[in-house]
Amino acid sequence: MSKDPEMRPAPMQAEEADSIRALATQLRVDSIRCSTNAGSGHPTSSLSAADLMAVLLTRHLRYDWEHPALPNNDHLIFSKGHASPLLYSMYRAAGVVEEDELLNTYRQFGARLQGHPTPVLPWVDVATGSLGQGLPVAVGVSLAGRYLDKLPFHTWVLCGDSELAEGSIWEALDKAAYYKLGNLTAVVDVNRLGQDGPTELQWDMDAYARRVEAFGARALVIDGHDLGQIDDALSRARSEPDRPTVILAKTIKGKGVPEIEDQNGWHGKALPADMAEKAIAALGGPSSVHVTTRPPESGTPAITPDAHVAVTLPDWKVGDKVATRAAFGAAVSALADRPEVVVLDGEVGNSTHAGEFKEVAPGRYFEIFIAEQQLVAAAIGLSVRGYVAFASSFAAFLVSRPFDFIRMAGVSEVNIRLVGTHAGVEIGQDGPSQMALEDIAAMRAVHSSTVLYPSDAPSTAQLVSAMADTPGISYLRATRGAYPVIYGPDEQFPLGGSKVHGASADDQVALIGAGITLHECLAAAEQLAQSGIKARVVDLYSIKPIDVDTLRRTCLETDGRIVVAEDHYAQGGIGSAVLEALASANTPKLHLALLAVRELPGSGEPKDLLNAAGISARHIAAAARDLVMD
Amino acid sequence: MSKDPEMRPAPMQAEEADSIRALATQLRVDSIRCSTNAGSGHPTSSLSAADLMAVLLTRHLRYDWEHPALPNNDHLIFSKGHASPLLYSMYRAAGVVEEDELLNTYRQFGARLQGHPTPVLPWVDVATGSLGQGLPVAVGVSLAGRYLDKLPFHTWVLCGDSELAEGSIWEALDKAAYYKLGNLTAVVDVNRLGQDGPTELQWDMDAYARRVEAFGARALVIDGHDLGQIDDALSRARSEPDRPTVILAKTIKGKGVPEIEDQNGWHGKALPADMAEKAIAALGGPSSVHVTTRPPESGTPAITPDAHVAVTLPDWKVGDKVATRAAFGAAVSALADRPEVVVLDGEVGNSTHAGEFKEVAPGRYFEIFIAEQQLVAAAIGLSVRGYVAFASSFAAFLVSRPFDFIRMAGVSEVNIRLVGTHAGVEIGQDGPSQMALEDIAAMRAVHSSTVLYPSDAPSTAQLVSAMADTPGISYLRATRGAYPVIYGPDEQFPLGGSKVHGASADDQVALIGAGITLHECLAAAEQLAQSGIKARVVDLYSIKPIDVDTLRRTCLETDGRIVVAEDHYAQGGIGSAVLEALASANTPKLHLALLAVRELPGSGEPKDLLNAAGISARHIAAAARDLVMD
Repeated sequence: MSKDPEMRPAPMQAEEADSIRALATQLRVDSIRCSTNAGSGHPTSSLSAADLMAVLLTRHLRYDWEHPALPNNDHLIFSKGHASPLLYSMYRAAGVVEEDELLNTYRQFGARLQGHPTPVLPWVDVATGSLGQGLPVAVGVSLAGRYLDKLPFHTWVLCGDSELAEGSIWEALDKAAYYKLGNLTAVVDVNRLGQDGPTELQWDMDAYARRVEAFGARALVIDGHDLGQIDDALSRARSEPDRPTVILAKTIKGKGVPEIEDQNGWHGKALPADMAEKAIAALGGPSSVHVTTRPPESGTPAITPDAHVAVTLPDWKVGDKVATRAAFGAAVSALADRPEVVVLDGEVGNSTHAGEFKEVAPGRYFEIFIAEQQLVAAAIGLSVRGYVAFASSFAAFLVSRPFDFIRMAGVSEVNIRLVGTHAGVEIGQDGPSQMALEDIAAMRAVHSSTVLYPSDAPSTAQLVSAMADTPGISYLRATRGAYPVIYGPDEQFPLGGSKVHGASADDQVALIGAGITLHECLAAAEQLAQSGIKARVVDLYSIKPIDVDTLRRTCLETDGRIVVAEDHYAQGGIGSAVLEALASANTPKLHLALLAVRELPGSGEPKDLLNAAGISARHIAAAARDLVMD
Repeated sequence: MSKDPEMRPAPMQAEEADSIRALATQLRVDSIRCSTNAGSGHPTSSLSAADLMAVLLTRHLRYDWEHPALPNNDHLIFSKGHASPLLYSMYRAAGVVEEDELLNTYRQFGARLQGHPTPVLPWVDVATGSLGQGLPVAVGVSLAGRYLDKLPFHTWVLCGDSELAEGSIWEALDKAAYYKLGNLTAVVDVNRLGQDGPTELQWDMDAYARRVEAFGARALVIDGHDLGQIDDALSRARSEPDRPTVILAKTIKGKGVPEIEDQNGWHGKALPADMAEKAIAALGGPSSVHVTTRPPESGTPAITPDAHVAVTLPDWKVGDKVATRAAFGAAVSALADRPEVVVLDGEVGNSTHAGEFKEVAPGRYFEIFIAEQQLVAAAIGLSVRGYVAFASSFAAFLVSRPFDFIRMAGVSEVNIRLVGTHAGVEIGQDGPSQMALEDIAAMRAVHSSTVLYPSDAPSTAQLVSAMADTPGISYLRATRGAYPVIYGPDEQFPLGGSKVHGASADDQVALIGAGITLHECLAAAEQLAQSGIKARVVDLYSIKPIDVDTLRRTCLETDGRIVVAEDHYAQGGIGSAVLEALASANTPKLHLALLAVRELPGSGEPKDLLNAAGISARHIAAAARDLVMD
């Protein structure tokens, strides 16, 4: 990626320093004004970083405010999202938020200037406010810049010092250094005070620097209120080619309002009106400094997304035994023909079969190692840059370890694809630590989520392909073992659909399964047929959205007799999804038997564990018989 | 805590070194034998650490194998749980597992020697197998040793190198150093190879050492196959008073079987029978070395749990407005009279009110800062030591950030108490990043969980008190705002119960709520009464276990007309719990309206957000009217 000669701004002259100082004062005044008007917010956490952001905004950020979607724009992510008064005050100074909006809508119902930033605002990449997430996401953004777009934009992240206690920050710095992300700079506002007292390291700048350097980033320790030092550090950060920079800025919380400077007890508190008035007057009163930001560098992204590339999915022969995880690997590899598709692995690519993508598109395969929070955060960052990122690992770790990142991806309304393999007791000998048994409940409850659980290779391949074009967070649960291919190559699997097997007008009961239990339901239907009971089977491959119409019709046609079998704990899973759907459809009569995992499983052969959990064919058949006899 | 003169073993003589070498060989042979017999497992990850564990077991671990519950015993936690063949082979050498059990039951259905260790075995403290968790839990164990028990036991943790990519490891080392845990030693088996290729840092021992030292622990770099170096490092580790030690042992994966030593592609694979036979023969064949472990030091724990201490809970006046989070703070402070009660804070103790405990029992209050994984892990470690630990933070972060730790706590079947405050849209202005809206779904699906959501101060206090005596993982969801006290001081709130308000024989509809929505349901019932509709209200403070009997009776008595209102997303929450309960009770007829959060909320006044989500009194009343008119 080219670095144009204008990369480094001319040395800061005295006059410019004065105007930056005036801007910093305005950012402070505005931070106080908007939070005091709102009656809540985090002014003191904004004041400490005002000088840092004033210099960044004036001299280093390269951004076209009128065209926030421009791929060449720098990124600015407030990892300390609670400093939203400062961020919004910067937007005012940049001319994209009016004074009236800032002062009168901040934190109000229906307003876009929310308590913590979200992408409702066009200049915000991702929602922050859960600490330790902005930097990991920025790693994904910067990965795209360096390896995919090959554009010279820079990613700037404002971190708090408290959030450096989150392990996710260290996962992020580790990966940033590993991938030589010279295009990433974290500015840490070390203001010594957390929400509830001093931080662990307070102003031990050397301790922070040692940690940062040990993780492979460059540490620059500065006085965060000295404009010259700030400017120099930001310049050096941008010109470092192959190493992320962490600017450790020693600051004073509440800086600019002497009576609360460096005082505990002022976190997350708006100044009372009288105090605010006095403070604003002492700062010189409101002003209307307008900043002209430097334009982004020119350049064209090296990759142009093309959703219209014809992708030929692999096919399989009905009856062949294929693991759905293998089908995922084959399908996502076929999707490599689309230049925007990227795969992220949690160091299990040989088991999840994600590794097959590396063979066909090594430049779009990123090894994140055993760091699932960073795995999902990187996918979010790539989504910010317009890529279609699939992150995969074992379902137990992929959903539960980064669950807060998945939750926040929902708040951001970004588009990410998660594929969790090795789900449920079906995994067998490795035992319960490796068995996802709560992933469906957790993922269903995430805003914007789609939850899929196919039972065979062709349905998996089609759903993986559909995920590439599905907005929000899509999650596909895959199975470890190999089971027969059920569907032919022309079968379609729309999201929100289902497949009904063996329906007849006089069915007495319906058996609902997905993934591994679909095979058990099919076997149970055969057993029931032998004893003269007519059962249809519903393949509920799409758990969210769910096929309400088919479920309602099924319920009506079987006189409400339904068995649901799932390789998941009994709470919040497939059975719950069916009950919620039938309740929403106001189905008059229902006798539902829910077969699910109810005790802690151990190790063993998959078939023994399915039997022990009471979710295998014979249990399904028995439950169906009970319903029919009842 | 006293350190007895026998703390440091006598220098290792040549003869002893020979017997340790023989033990290490046996551990290798046994690791190969059991995994080959099972047809799966991780022999190569066991072989690399065999020398380390042979020296530890023979000369440093102080443990009474016949009395694993002895409080003076050292702890040995395999954070790399996949090295279970090695751990179980150590148990055989210690004489507590027979050769037959090891060879013929490992990974078999119903066996206690599972694929990854769980506390089904009396010598295992916690389940491992999700990487990066053993060390954080050990921090909790060691906190207890240093600050509560004041016993000289030592906690030894075997870590893998791959798991050092997990941020949770760095949260753990950070806290271990902060709390000066000289009684904690991590032995890292740096065998260079992960599951899917080389690790990030491979054998860059200096890089590991820099990170460890930067985080405040002592790093000792050794050759992990040199018995003398191992012995020296373990001696030094135990005698370091105020700093955790990390022994960085350079090892060779597969060590002892030349054809697979340091070879990629052998992770998690049992040797085929012919290879195993050859390897075992080359190692000298099976043996039966028996180790006599040094006994634990003497001493009495400084704290003796006493569940019979009379605790006087605070009381409140009906009608007073009190936040349930404030009631939690008051109740848990009252519980401080029980010497085994400990409180852990995620640097928000002033908001959660957990901080009040610090005033009454500062020695049993641990500040974990913004590191929720470590927060929960520390609670797990304290549970291992018999303490009743309450961990609290905002619900959004407490449940979702450490969800994998909570899941694994379920696998461990330990007893921990989680209190998440500031749940749902009710929190208002801070916006969606701070709103737990998926916590109930996630927590319900965890094995052994109890999920509570009280609506007023007295019920909160009683439930907090009940949590102290509740096995498994109990979770209480608390509200930010202050709402009227509903219940008098003598009201009882058993787990699995509910409270029915205003029931009469001719009720037309039931309104079910919990927490904030209970107040909305009560208001809705009044509105309905004014329009002549008789509605009863059910306070479902216990979401899991749930009051099936009352729900069934409610359903029968209202002709199936039920409105559920919840400040949670519509999937897997209270509505689902009610539907699951009614399905299990086979209730014949049900018309259930589920009012829940269905769109991404923003910032605003709580009442505006409750309205916007459609879960406030007027929506509940309207839904009830619709059901009644239907």
